[in-house]
Amino acid sequence: MSILTGARMMNDGQGHLFMVGGGEDRRGAMRVLARYVELCGGPDRPIAVVTSASAIADQMWELYDSVFGELGVRHRFCVRPETAEEADDADGERQILEAGGVFMSGGSQQRLVEILNGTRLHRAMRQAFGRQGACLGGTSAGAAAMARLMLARGTREKLPDKRTARLESGLDFLRQVVIDQHFSERQRLARLLSAVAQSPDLIGVGIDEDTALIIGSNGQIEVFGAGAVTLIDGRRMSSNIARAGTQENLELIQVILHLLPADSRYDADHLDADGRPAAATEALINVLQLVGQVRL
Amino acid sequence: MSILTGARMMNDGQGHLFMVGGGEDRRGAMRVLARYVELCGGPDRPIAVVTSASAIADQMWELYDSVFGELGVRHRFCVRPETAEEADDADGERQILEAGGVFMSGGSQQRLVEILNGTRLHRAMRQAFGRQGACLGGTSAGAAAMARLMLARGTREKLPDKRTARLESGLDFLRQVVIDQHFSERQRLARLLSAVAQSPDLIGVGIDEDTALIIGSNGQIEVFGAGAVTLIDGRRMSSNIARAGTQENLELIQVILHLLPADSRYDADHLDADGRPAAATEALINVLQLVGQVRL
Repeated sequence: MSILTGARMMNDGQGHLFMVGGGEDRRGAMRVLARYVELCGGPDRPIAVVTSASAIADQMWELYDSVFGELGVRHRFCVRPETAEEADDADGERQILEAGGVFMSGGSQQRLVEILNGTRLHRAMRQAFGRQGACLGGTSAGAAAMARLMLARGTREKLPDKRTARLESGLDFLRQVVIDQHFSERQRLARLLSAVAQSPDLIGVGIDEDTALIIGSNGQIEVFGAGAVTLIDGRRMSSNIARAGTQENLELIQVILHLLPADSRYDADHLDADGRPAAATEALINVLQLVGQVRL
Repeated sequence: MSILTGARMMNDGQGHLFMVGGGEDRRGAMRVLARYVELCGGPDRPIAVVTSASAIADQMWELYDSVFGELGVRHRFCVRPETAEEADDADGERQILEAGGVFMSGGSQQRLVEILNGTRLHRAMRQAFGRQGACLGGTSAGAAAMARLMLARGTREKLPDKRTARLESGLDFLRQVVIDQHFSERQRLARLLSAVAQSPDLIGVGIDEDTALIIGSNGQIEVFGAGAVTLIDGRRMSSNIARAGTQENLELIQVILHLLPADSRYDADHLDADGRPAAATEALINVLQLVGQVRL
């Protein structure tokens, strides 16, 4: 395994990571899921749906089976391990290695990671992405789980404190981010700030509903869908987290926030200034290079 | 009239500005309103309640009459002009000039400013603050109205765009801020970002419910109550607002955010680093000096 900047390691043969903030349209134009199918290589490529995160996995499979069917995808199959043992399944591994994409449903990111982490299926996903150019996607919990560290439990506190966010290991496809979903819809700035205050080296990534953050070949980063992606950069932040009591509200000074609206594309390595001042362009390049750090 | 940094122009004889984000406790310990009474000079000093913002002005007066009564304030009176003509009233002017504090209720900040702006009562408030050290306070609409520019209408959009915020003239006690209230409770980051994108020279100030931002003598800035004050500094921000369509979501790069929890005190002119790195301390001093720019 190698850790490289997304920009430098992905060539056109390699895949995409596709993180949806939950609540993607599944009835109307289904723009976000249609874009997902496109990045899987189109409707002729098989799509594996992983529903392990969900407590209603059967219904979840019926839903995505029907939706991807409507989008023209002919080969759809469900991969639904309920334990880590089941996720060491050779059949599932083979199916994933042949797929154009793997899409992880919502539910509990903790459950998803407990089942998948370190198993054959997990390794197969990484290989499918790195070797065959598969599109690894997830929505809500399925998106949150894709980073090295994830928000395992987040209370709905209005303000950041030490307890609002607990970080646990995720599937480690993305190295330098912590992802929160339903971001603008569920007032999650406080919990993302809490996570960044705990781990200021990670970029906080807040993805709105019906919106995808797509990390693609050659350093391309795309925001697609209805909402926006909010990036929280705490590397120059000063916080009192070390001194604060457990429930005490935090003081956070000099947090840098970037708001990337749909539908925008950014090339971290060759970013067009596009009217931006040099300092802003530099700050954006710098943060996008971290966001794009994919682990093969 | 002179425009000076709050820090430099206010001596101990001068007053305080007291902006509450709405929803202050009026039944329990009433900490925020008790602090207000204290800054008015204690229960022996008269308090004028201005209810002009409210459509239910009588009930509003009954409420604050009872609350300030419970807090021991003996001399309470209501100032309730319904038109600009009524706000040129000499009796009201005299009462305000004798008061230890003027407290503006919630309601519509547009209505409040339309009635008060440029009248005798408005001038009397400024004089009471500058000469007699009165505490000028307001909650919700009453707080929003205290800046030079205020959010006159803000839709509940989830994301910043050109139409989310409209800025109009306020009572101009504070020069360099735009205030939003109920901040963490009502998901108002988007509309405050919209306001700052329109006027990047203004510091966006988001005040939570049951929380006061207090701008006091000698450059003291205090956050008091249950929540926090969020400061949005867009002076180094790059935005596409000039090019974006009316309903298009905005791209905002390099917005700086500071979160000041209750109960914190900051002296903009003599800020103790308090464990903060020099750059963060400098950024904080710089933004607090703008927040503290009071117009006498």
